[in-house]
Amino acid sequence: MRGLFFLFCGIVAILSADPLPSWNEGPNKQAILKFVEESARIPVNERIAVFDQDGTLWVEQPLYTQVFFALDSIKALADKHPSWKNEEPFKTILEGRYSDFKNFTAADIEQIMIYTHSGMSTDEYADQVKKWLETARHPRYNRPFTSLIYQPMLEVIHLLKKNDFDVHIVSGGGQEFIRAYAEKVYGIPPQNVIGTAGKLQYHYNEGHPFLKKLPEILFVDDKTGKPESISLFIGRRPVAAFGNSVGDQQMLEWTQGGFPPRLEMLVHHDDPIREYAYGPDSKIGRFSEALMHEALREGWHVISMKNDWKQIFPEESN
Amino acid sequence: MRGLFFLFCGIVAILSADPLPSWNEGPNKQAILKFVEESARIPVNERIAVFDQDGTLWVEQPLYTQVFFALDSIKALADKHPSWKNEEPFKTILEGRYSDFKNFTAADIEQIMIYTHSGMSTDEYADQVKKWLETARHPRYNRPFTSLIYQPMLEVIHLLKKNDFDVHIVSGGGQEFIRAYAEKVYGIPPQNVIGTAGKLQYHYNEGHPFLKKLPEILFVDDKTGKPESISLFIGRRPVAAFGNSVGDQQMLEWTQGGFPPRLEMLVHHDDPIREYAYGPDSKIGRFSEALMHEALREGWHVISMKNDWKQIFPEESN
Repeated sequence: MRGLFFLFCGIVAILSADPLPSWNEGPNKQAILKFVEESARIPVNERIAVFDQDGTLWVEQPLYTQVFFALDSIKALADKHPSWKNEEPFKTILEGRYSDFKNFTAADIEQIMIYTHSGMSTDEYADQVKKWLETARHPRYNRPFTSLIYQPMLEVIHLLKKNDFDVHIVSGGGQEFIRAYAEKVYGIPPQNVIGTAGKLQYHYNEGHPFLKKLPEILFVDDKTGKPESISLFIGRRPVAAFGNSVGDQQMLEWTQGGFPPRLEMLVHHDDPIREYAYGPDSKIGRFSEALMHEALREGWHVISMKNDWKQIFPEESN
Repeated sequence: MRGLFFLFCGIVAILSADPLPSWNEGPNKQAILKFVEESARIPVNERIAVFDQDGTLWVEQPLYTQVFFALDSIKALADKHPSWKNEEPFKTILEGRYSDFKNFTAADIEQIMIYTHSGMSTDEYADQVKKWLETARHPRYNRPFTSLIYQPMLEVIHLLKKNDFDVHIVSGGGQEFIRAYAEKVYGIPPQNVIGTAGKLQYHYNEGHPFLKKLPEILFVDDKTGKPESISLFIGRRPVAAFGNSVGDQQMLEWTQGGFPPRLEMLVHHDDPIREYAYGPDSKIGRFSEALMHEALREGWHVISMKNDWKQIFPEESN
């Protein structure tokens, strides 16, 4: 009898458990719950949800994580390139003058990407990213980058997956970079990660095939590139889209162009205490005033990090 | 009691049911069953299987189905282009001189593709393909093209899916063409269809976003393009690969480069009575002698359509 009683209590607890415990009560939390409830009307194979990554699923300040990786990779390669001490953009990186990075030209960035993101095989590159993530720490939080993911968004991903959504990342960042950790960190497998991609070249040496990363871009997965890549990779219009910048604008428009129920949300970084603040009036970030106007006009939900999120990051496990 | 008896019989029937009833007993059927049994050792998220389409999942003779679609589309557009009556390659198509198609140049084919595969939105294109498939008939079998799929391969796809494999099509054909029917015909959703892809361009007209198909190729998903696109789209090496031509060679090599258990299979079209015959000694098709040698050397399984397949197509339902 006692066993049955506890079993009963357990079932009640499960039934009444809040699937979004890191969200404060309010219209945004309600919008998510209402959408998930209404999504029962959407055929299972059409339940596609897309999430931007940098600034939507994890911290993107003071630099994109992938940029930290590229800079550290340049430092690691410096011994083999003694001339870099006197050559830009390497000199600035090796001397650690972070405030001068903003002066880098497109050609400088191309140089950095050539040395850090091409020339090796896809397997070697993935190993380098994984190895770097094990020891690298965010300068402000002194925590691993992969622990600076947004707990409230993780809860939304889990809730959507529990309701048979096929959840994809659609990021302006490099897709192979994200794939190196997305399955472990977000539970999103590589085939559900879309991002900016470079060209690959197949090689076959006596029974050993490998794919070499070339220093050429295949497509840039930002702005109009997002609905284009969604069509290329998924071939079906999403019913839910989450972003945080002008880079996500067209992805949200594309999502909204379909039949309801639909859900479009933008993360507004307005929490300088716990995270960062860079809204429409900020000099950093990419949340323009025009984007805020479009969000208000189109009925997109703007998430206030400060007010909507009870907790920002997962508890530290290490 | 009687109900229980029939229930029992039903369970026994399910347990002993042959998952590959259209396959004759023999080493190839055994290789598939053995691989599926051993795949229990493969972590679920690494169970990736890839299938070429033309000649591997459905008939590719006397022309690729997509080519029939393109030719019919040219005919349908002819009223709007009266000058085509005297202009090549349109003249040859409009006069139905199929035997002269082999003389088309790359520029001719480009012209055909521009008019039939670009200029419209992705939605309009998908509608055109679906509409065409409803009425078009294969010239030899007088059946819808979508009914000329290989029943034995359909059984392999179902068996793999039942064992938690993520099954993808990796085709040299156009990926949007295949996506228009793959879910209905093979049970493979659009996000699991990779093929040759054109560039897209996002447009937004007063709340109405659409993606326009441009007359430019983004990548060709054939030969070395196959492992490259698998890396681009799936980001994980397959453990099973099925093909039928030199266009699939690198995809099978790439699959074999991983750890066992692995399965690589090639369909050998050697059945002129029920289907077509075009092996290494044929002037048609793309199964070269070098490919046969590589298959024998590497231990790839070569499926004899004539001997291994009890039944080729599903029963006609219409």
